[in-house]
Amino acid sequence: MKVTICRKGYFSAAHKLYNPKWSKEKNDEVFEKCAYPNYHGHDFEVHVCVTGDVDPETGFVIRISDLKKIIKQEVEIPLDHKNINMDVPYFKDKNPTTENLAIFIYSQIKKHLKKEHQLEIILHETPKNYVRYGDS
Amino acid sequence: MKVTICRKGYFSAAHKLYNPKWSKEKNDEVFEKCAYPNYHGHDFEVHVCVTGDVDPETGFVIRISDLKKIIKQEVEIPLDHKNINMDVPYFKDKNPTTENLAIFIYSQIKKHLKKEHQLEIILHETPKNYVRYGDS
Amino acid sequence: MKVTICRKGYFSAAHKLYNPKWSKEKNDEVFEKCAYPNYHGHDFEVHVCVTGDVDPETGFVIRISDLKKIIKQEVEIPLDHKNINMDVPYFKDKNPTTENLAIFIYSQIKKHLKKEHQLEIILHETPKNYVRYGDS
Amino acid sequence: MKVTICRKGYFSAAHKLYNPKWSKEKNDEVFEKCAYPNYHGHDFEVHVCVTGDVDPETGFVIRISDLKKIIKQEVEIPLDHKNINMDVPYFKDKNPTTENLAIFIYSQIKKHLKKEHQLEIILHETPKNYVRYGDS
Amino acid sequence: MKVTICRKGYFSAAHKLYNPKWSKEKNDEVFEKCAYPNYHGHDFEVHVCVTGDVDPETGFVIRISDLKKIIKQEVEIPLDHKNINMDVPYFKDKNPTTENLAIFIYSQIKKHLKKEHQLEIILHETPKNYVRYGDS
Amino acid sequence: MKVTICRKGYFSAAHKLYNPKWSKEKNDEVFEKCAYPNYHGHDFEVHVCVTGDVDPETGFVIRISDLKKIIKQEVEIPLDHKNINMDVPYFKDKNPTTENLAIFIYSQIKKHLKKEHQLEIILHETPKNYVRYGDS
Repeated sequence: MKVTICRKGYFSAAHKLYNPKWSKEKNDEVFEKCAYPNYHGHDFEVHVCVTGDVDPETGFVIRISDLKKIIKQEVEIPLDHKNINMDVPYFKDKNPTTENLAIFIYSQIKKHLKKEHQLEIILHETPKNYVRYGDS
Repeated sequence: MKVTICRKGYFSAAHKLYNPKWSKEKNDEVFEKCAYPNYHGHDFEVHVCVTGDVDPETGFVIRISDLKKIIKQEVEIPLDHKNINMDVPYFKDKNPTTENLAIFIYSQIKKHLKKEHQLEIILHETPKNYVRYGDS
Repeated sequence: MKVTICRKGYFSAAHKLYNPKWSKEKNDEVFEKCAYPNYHGHDFEVHVCVTGDVDPETGFVIRISDLKKIIKQEVEIPLDHKNINMDVPYFKDKNPTTENLAIFIYSQIKKHLKKEHQLEIILHETPKNYVRYGDS
Repeated sequence: MKVTICRKGYFSAAHKLYNPKWSKEKNDEVFEKCAYPNYHGHDFEVHVCVTGDVDPETGFVIRISDLKKIIKQEVEIPLDHKNINMDVPYFKDKNPTTENLAIFIYSQIKKHLKKEHQLEIILHETPKNYVRYGDS
Repeated sequence: MKVTICRKGYFSAAHKLYNPKWSKEKNDEVFEKCAYPNYHGHDFEVHVCVTGDVDPETGFVIRISDLKKIIKQEVEIPLDHKNINMDVPYFKDKNPTTENLAIFIYSQIKKHLKKEHQLEIILHETPKNYVRYGDS
Repeated sequence: MKVTICRKGYFSAAHKLYNPKWSKEKNDEVFEKCAYPNYHGHDFEVHVCVTGDVDPETGFVIRISDLKKIIKQEVEIPLDHKNINMDVPYFKDKNPTTENLAIFIYSQIKKHLKKEHQLEIILHETPKNYVRYGDS
């Protein structure tokens, strides 16, 4: 049987929701206040959850301090105190919804894990909304 | 791969646990302090989680503001500041346990979703108890 | 210099807001959905905060396990899984607003404390509302 | 003895810290990552706390639904999903630190209260920082 | 369709991470500050989640008060205010990582459940780390 | 009017409550399970609150990043993943109750602040207990 271990990370970022192929009117109609042109922001909380076998020597699925470093390098440094639309190349042509942000974070973390590890991302955008994405 | 998006809703309601086919003694024995006749109450917090594909135009599984309206109409208006036993027809003959309340909320929300969407309800009754129910 | 130590307690109770000297119309107008006749309820969280000198022998202002027993006897037993309007004599003729409930809890706890101790009650009625009441 | 009642409000906003009288270098040195030019953002949580006598007829210091309306009109509408530097006239020439934002919110709410009421603002900027400001 | 009901428990315990087959140097290298010889500690929060059919007579998957007793007897009494390495026989030769602690709690609870019930343990070690383990 | 700004810090530590001038029996009687000889532990959360005037140039009472460094150096490094009784010289002859720990943290921070600043420490020992200590 496998165990899942989750580590939380945090970043505060600005964004707006916007589809560049649409008119301003359509963007406003679909994205409502999230389309507001001067940006708004959130304190994002991300849970990075890794599932795998427990190593009998260490008792770990993955060492938390290693996971913490990956989260810092791949999530917190590129996103914290940034404007997601303007500063993150992945979102040049992609709408930074919570869904797409979770997929981005998944791809940032996944490349650092062993093949036998499964990954799930839980991303809280506000105290009332969150998204889950990952293997299973 | 699919993404799950969750939106929280809230309602404060009174209830008691009670099986009308049983004697008062049996109700007291089985439901203990929850059977107390003059009702007690809780600040319920419900997470409504919808799983589906991300629309490439919007970046959404479902628009949060639409989900918020469904939760308001189907959960918060019928349940907030109400007595669940007395005021909600579904519970006329059904015991309003957290389990049954989650099933009720599932059925209230499910009818508004697309067929390809999966739904999960997480319902917190107190800071120490919660229930999960849904598709999977 | 004095130290304040706080212990949390919990109770789930039903109530409604109601002034018996007023008409139903006036009650509805003033208390809105809180006047709903069949009651609603909350998961109350109370912080009982005692301020005093630190005893040099124990390092305590008051022993937490003693404060816990007082909270159980004077707050949780009389209020948990109860209907505040119907089951608590103090509220026979008094409206069980969060303000009045905090004053009631203050009087229940205060009589057990030493004269040199100051008492403050913080009472959370919902995740969005709370009240503070006490000495100073 | 007086009672304090607090109501929480929420807004998600973008900002950056910036003193227009300073060079870019000095802004970067003093405000560090908060000076980042493309803005970042937070999910602010504000507690609006009003202290006064309990009205013997209602059991209220102030009716929560009235306080909720004031918070909506004076805090959430002007600040939610906005860029504080660009969209709030008060911050045209003032740095939107948490301290200054709390003072702004205080002034927005205070004008709606009775003279005998005291007001305190508690403003959470991130899960790790908060500010208190008010009468006393 | 099945419902899952979760009950939270709490315990405050000391531990250190340590593999007795390794040198002190290797323990320090692998377990870092968690290998500190004089122990450190945490306020653990455990969610015990039972999945099964809802009994049509009671509306329960399992009675919460029964689950609460099992958690008290099998988790809180053996672990609260204890040193996990020194006081819990299961950890005499096993490293008390959060992963192994979740597996231990699973085995403590599982023996009390009906065969048709599935069990999942969610164990929070700090506000930033948690583990999930169980049937599925 | 003055503003208070608070920054949170965290440390996980082991301790036991013990008065070396007393017999084991008296220690057990007074400190109950907290006197357990092999130590237990907690995830402490400390709020460091500084009150002062807002600098008109920066909009700060104190720069959060400076306060964060002081908390790291004076609180987190000496206490995190440590045994408070054994590893912190201040507690060689002093009982590490939450009250005394708050006074210790106050003295560690106070020496780094300007004279015109007031300091308050709020220290959470468990999710149910906390202590406040400071100037006022």
